[in-house]
Amino acid sequence: MKYGYYDNDNREYVITRPDTPTPWLNYLGDGGFSGIISNTAGGLVFDRDPGNFRITRYNFNRIPYDRPGRYLYFKDMGSGAVWSPTWQPVQAELDSYSCRHGMGYTRISSEKDGIQSEITYFIPEGKQYEIWKGTVKNTSATVKNLKLFSYVEFSCYIAKYDIECDWPRYFFDCRRKGNAIIFNPSDDFIREKRLLSYIATDLPIEGHDCARIEFLGTCRDESNPIAVERGVCGNSDINGDNACGSFCCPVSLAPGEEKSFVFTIGNACDEEEIKEQVASASDYPLVHEQLEELKAAWRKNSRYLQVKTPDEQMNTMLNIWHPYQCRMTFNWSRFISFYERGLDRGWGYRDSMQDVLGVVHSAPDKVKERLRTLMGIQKSDGNARTLYFPGTGESMGGGRSDDHIWTVFSVCTYVKETGDYGFLEELIPFIDGGEGTVLQHLKLGLEFTKHHLGEHGVPLFLGSDWNDSLSKISWDKHKAESAFVFFQAAHAAYELIHLFEHLKDTENTQWAKQYYEWCRSVEPVLWDGKWYLRGFTDYGEKYGTDDDEYNKIFLNPQSWAVLSRLPSAEKGNSCFENVKQYLFCDLGVVSHAPASSGIDFQKKYFFGMKTGIRENGGLFFHASTWAIIAETLLGRNEDAYSLYHRELPTVRNDRADVCKVEPYIYSSSMVGPSHERYGSGECSWLSGTASWMFLAASQYILGFRPDYDGVIIDPCVPLEWDGFSYTRIYRGISCTVQSPKLPVENARAKKIIVDGETLDSNFLPYDTIRGKQSVEIVVVY
Amino acid sequence: MKYGYYDNDNREYVITRPDTPTPWLNYLGDGGFSGIISNTAGGLVFDRDPGNFRITRYNFNRIPYDRPGRYLYFKDMGSGAVWSPTWQPVQAELDSYSCRHGMGYTRISSEKDGIQSEITYFIPEGKQYEIWKGTVKNTSATVKNLKLFSYVEFSCYIAKYDIECDWPRYFFDCRRKGNAIIFNPSDDFIREKRLLSYIATDLPIEGHDCARIEFLGTCRDESNPIAVERGVCGNSDINGDNACGSFCCPVSLAPGEEKSFVFTIGNACDEEEIKEQVASASDYPLVHEQLEELKAAWRKNSRYLQVKTPDEQMNTMLNIWHPYQCRMTFNWSRFISFYERGLDRGWGYRDSMQDVLGVVHSAPDKVKERLRTLMGIQKSDGNARTLYFPGTGESMGGGRSDDHIWTVFSVCTYVKETGDYGFLEELIPFIDGGEGTVLQHLKLGLEFTKHHLGEHGVPLFLGSDWNDSLSKISWDKHKAESAFVFFQAAHAAYELIHLFEHLKDTENTQWAKQYYEWCRSVEPVLWDGKWYLRGFTDYGEKYGTDDDEYNKIFLNPQSWAVLSRLPSAEKGNSCFENVKQYLFCDLGVVSHAPASSGIDFQKKYFFGMKTGIRENGGLFFHASTWAIIAETLLGRNEDAYSLYHRELPTVRNDRADVCKVEPYIYSSSMVGPSHERYGSGECSWLSGTASWMFLAASQYILGFRPDYDGVIIDPCVPLEWDGFSYTRIYRGISCTVQSPKLPVENARAKKIIVDGETLDSNFLPYDTIRGKQSVEIVVVY
Repeated sequence: MKYGYYDNDNREYVITRPDTPTPWLNYLGDGGFSGIISNTAGGLVFDRDPGNFRITRYNFNRIPYDRPGRYLYFKDMGSGAVWSPTWQPVQAELDSYSCRHGMGYTRISSEKDGIQSEITYFIPEGKQYEIWKGTVKNTSATVKNLKLFSYVEFSCYIAKYDIECDWPRYFFDCRRKGNAIIFNPSDDFIREKRLLSYIATDLPIEGHDCARIEFLGTCRDESNPIAVERGVCGNSDINGDNACGSFCCPVSLAPGEEKSFVFTIGNACDEEEIKEQVASASDYPLVHEQLEELKAAWRKNSRYLQVKTPDEQMNTMLNIWHPYQCRMTFNWSRFISFYERGLDRGWGYRDSMQDVLGVVHSAPDKVKERLRTLMGIQKSDGNARTLYFPGTGESMGGGRSDDHIWTVFSVCTYVKETGDYGFLEELIPFIDGGEGTVLQHLKLGLEFTKHHLGEHGVPLFLGSDWNDSLSKISWDKHKAESAFVFFQAAHAAYELIHLFEHLKDTENTQWAKQYYEWCRSVEPVLWDGKWYLRGFTDYGEKYGTDDDEYNKIFLNPQSWAVLSRLPSAEKGNSCFENVKQYLFCDLGVVSHAPASSGIDFQKKYFFGMKTGIRENGGLFFHASTWAIIAETLLGRNEDAYSLYHRELPTVRNDRADVCKVEPYIYSSSMVGPSHERYGSGECSWLSGTASWMFLAASQYILGFRPDYDGVIIDPCVPLEWDGFSYTRIYRGISCTVQSPKLPVENARAKKIIVDGETLDSNFLPYDTIRGKQSVEIVVVY
Repeated sequence: MKYGYYDNDNREYVITRPDTPTPWLNYLGDGGFSGIISNTAGGLVFDRDPGNFRITRYNFNRIPYDRPGRYLYFKDMGSGAVWSPTWQPVQAELDSYSCRHGMGYTRISSEKDGIQSEITYFIPEGKQYEIWKGTVKNTSATVKNLKLFSYVEFSCYIAKYDIECDWPRYFFDCRRKGNAIIFNPSDDFIREKRLLSYIATDLPIEGHDCARIEFLGTCRDESNPIAVERGVCGNSDINGDNACGSFCCPVSLAPGEEKSFVFTIGNACDEEEIKEQVASASDYPLVHEQLEELKAAWRKNSRYLQVKTPDEQMNTMLNIWHPYQCRMTFNWSRFISFYERGLDRGWGYRDSMQDVLGVVHSAPDKVKERLRTLMGIQKSDGNARTLYFPGTGESMGGGRSDDHIWTVFSVCTYVKETGDYGFLEELIPFIDGGEGTVLQHLKLGLEFTKHHLGEHGVPLFLGSDWNDSLSKISWDKHKAESAFVFFQAAHAAYELIHLFEHLKDTENTQWAKQYYEWCRSVEPVLWDGKWYLRGFTDYGEKYGTDDDEYNKIFLNPQSWAVLSRLPSAEKGNSCFENVKQYLFCDLGVVSHAPASSGIDFQKKYFFGMKTGIRENGGLFFHASTWAIIAETLLGRNEDAYSLYHRELPTVRNDRADVCKVEPYIYSSSMVGPSHERYGSGECSWLSGTASWMFLAASQYILGFRPDYDGVIIDPCVPLEWDGFSYTRIYRGISCTVQSPKLPVENARAKKIIVDGETLDSNFLPYDTIRGKQSVEIVVVY
């Protein structure tokens, strides 16, 4: 069952009914003043950091869900009818409804009883306010006297206090000043120069309510406010209680007449700044211009890769939604979504380190800044802290086995994309004192891993490796070992050999080669005969072995082994033949199988999460991306593409009732075939899937893979494709790649023709194209 | 406007309409398996500790409020009508409704469309389950085919995870086994032997739902579940998602027919134990007996003081509700109510130390145990940690200036009440190692205070004194000084002199006298000419002085000065004349005046809370109690009683629409006259008001004041009273005190007649009544 369709011309997804199985969200803003908005206008607004600067409230995982939001109520004073033009929260049946989630904006249109309305929500670039730009039109033959009511619920900026304590409301001040309702959560304990929040409108105002209880009424909720029922607000102010922002605005419309209006939510240092913001937000030509600028900025963001393949769903994702999700994930790490509650997560070190991979081609400056920040919470022993809070600069945690290794891929990918070798010598402090060059940070991370080995010589699992939900494996003796981390470190060493060789740094090349040789010496201990183990348990037992009934084979060790280039082609193919046999399913690939249920140290059952869910036998898409890359490295074109295609969000548009989550972006996972809810998506929007899947698709399937001194052109596509092309902007040069249909299955590029000149290999040297505006590349198989 | 009345014969408060201005709550259970329940069946269930062992969910301060709860839906399959017999969550209009909050139980009765129902909610003493004992009766002339649906929403036991994180639901398991729906939140991370929760019923079961989304439906909430609308459940189980407990039970009733049923919510170690519990809970005679036992236990709890005064409202409070509130406050400190969210507060050291005062006469063994536990988190330097968590035994915090001093009053009051002198020599460990006798704990607390003095020789404010909301006063230089702590310490020293003299402990008596003499030497520095200062700010400036325009006079320093007996009668009366002038209002007494608004160190404005709210100029009842006691010590009978009477919860029954909170228990505060919401109650149920107001009423107004070797009989009542009497159980002896009308205003007892024998003073020596069952005491003025 469908709930909407892709309008690719307008770069929008159009939701055609309001009762989606879960709220289908969009993000507004680009990391500064920002918000999330659902297809029925639920969601919240915050500034930079939803934990410390949350402006409006949102109730996560509570019933009724997706409440509150940016609400409007229409009351027809003639008939007495009340509805919300966004369906929620009144849920009155509408004569028509559509929600268009676009790039950085959402537009909800509806009609009821001869009243048509359209409201566009967006945050102009670099501004501290969100605009609801609306029109309301009388399509009937009689005069319509309406009243419009707004409703938002203000939050204590420090969301944790607001959720866990009763007292913050005693500090709230909220009152109307002219056409703005101004909220002050108290400067008694909130350190914020933009202390004032507000909602304002350019409509004529008949009354207002700042008191939540006065607007809603006793024993009522957002679906049936007493003020709307009465048709008048109570003009209440707040002086130490729960606060809302409600205006009552009379609007009279002659037959056919249309009126425009604006509501604004923002934050500011003082009332003067509020006035300026509200004036700007009510300047219709300016607002129009800002919305066009916003669209243009997002168009530019996806211009770095535009593809034309025979796979229309792939095109839709790569040309529109995938880069958008990459950017939002880069902005918010795992901090705030419908599932992540914007409290304690901030930016995860390993999360954000991987998120940069998805925007390194489109926003290299932001990536460089993020790399600096993250490496700044690495310790001088090489290990990194786990979390960083962008609003306050605080960090916490540490002691995981994988965090510090991710830095290698991120830094190498950044340098390959940009050629910014100077960055490698930049000094970056350690969180516990002292400083080191970027290169030193990378090496210290790998050294840390080599200094924390278990009894089989494999890196210790420590507090956690990539899979937190497996952490129980090391809770008893702290001796568990991780094949994931081992192959991750080997792959990192492989990357560094390549980097140091390119830098002609003999000493470091030798260091990296020695490291890799050590890895080569350890590899056999992890070979289970047909695939690689997941590691060893706290008691030294093999884990992820054919000997066991459950948890026999894990996906990640196979993928990362291939990425590390340690295994022979034979071993690699054996791994993936077994992945295909044990882990593939019609919707993608599961994390491991057969998944066990419950904790039992004797039986080597270490997952408390239910079987088939997330990292316990679910389709965990982040892990799928490495499998796809591994398949391309093994020359298994068909399997690589088939897996990629099966997991495209677009392919589940027709069964959204089962998948439940948004079909225009990747969710973090999908419930696996061992579970009765097979196919149900979980935790959409913020996921490491975004960046790595973008790499898998662009660098490994379409095969545009920047390297230090040029680009490897190495598509890995299926035989069924009748050729394809794409344009990739690389170091400012527009590179158009064209490929014919493959001559045979699994064919790979042998040569390329660049602007008509045939090269000897599939490597495009940067020196040959430097300074050009564009180049045309044809792939020869 | 009224919402109910007191049914004193049944020891119940009867709520006659469901839409009370706030949810009016009752507590079920007595500190073990427990719950809170509102007048429309909202609330939650937990075991011992609502932070670590929360069983059902409850949404604090979120809209719709007071959701979810222990819900039932009735569907008349003939007419299709749907309603909740407790009004919420459906809110369908009922033909009749009443909620009777009794002692440890709540009964909600209603009728609609010829269906009468009555449901009694209670937790049998010492049991791990809550019972909903119901009847449903057909009062119409036709057969009624009903379906009853239940609904509770299960919580991850660790409430913080449940509220802050999305992942706990991935661990949930919930499925029906016979007549029970069993919920397992996962033993992966929850340390609890009673890991299984359940809901069960003895009704015939047609279907069930364990999946919240299946029962409620997409975009629906508790008010309109899809399952109820359809009239059938979906038989869903839960294997990693939000879980609920819903049964669908068909009930057919002939005209006039009545059926009984039971629902049970509990927790248990295994399914066997669940079966046993459910069997007991469905044993109707046993359930009836348990309810009667429960009522008897609560009757016994208030038998320790039964009063007959001309003030009927005072009688209602002291004979029924006030001791009940004292016990619930003792059980829950400030941990869980409609306002306290059961997360981070546990038992506060100072809170619980004071809570024991309200139950020391009725539950001395529990008090002794609590005193041990609390002194066990005192450090060897005398300072106490701030919080203790009963579920886990963990403690945290410390560094406040008042915590450790409260111990003196609690221990002295316990020993005076019980004569248990042995307790004083009991060894109790310090949280940081070592141990000391109870007496050493007390002395170390006072020594700590004397070792932390500011530049005026007055104790430092430190992290906080009693008034946390004034803590800003010491945030800059940490040099602020507290008159509150000074007089509190002086009062404690005064108490200890008395104790040590009684113990004939010369050395310690000398120590206490020296301490008190030091206090005497410091007292003048705090005298402002007409009253006592509140202390000195961080910059050494006087605070709470007539020199200032705002925050001139604070209530607490005046009360505690009088309690300390340091001031002359002249000074004491001057203080309270000014209290009367500046702080009295028609509803009681405010914390200080004129209250300032906002933080301004220059102007000595240190309150961020809104003016008129709580400790910033509100009626903070905890502080009122000490004023009442001080007035009695000053011989100001009329003012003492008048203040006491004005603040009785019962006096606000007629204006419950303004007061909003429950009129049968004290709220922590009421909004003060400087605020537009003057008279609105805040934070009801858990408050230091309970215990101290009980002392003020029983020991100081009615004047039954146990001392080390007997009882001081010293009523302080108004001239208007035509005499009064009460019975107080003291060390097992039933003491009946009778008093005639006062001969003149402010008269105080000169002598007492004990069983016909006139004594020389108003002191009743314990030796003269030891071994008696009862004594009759007549007061002579």
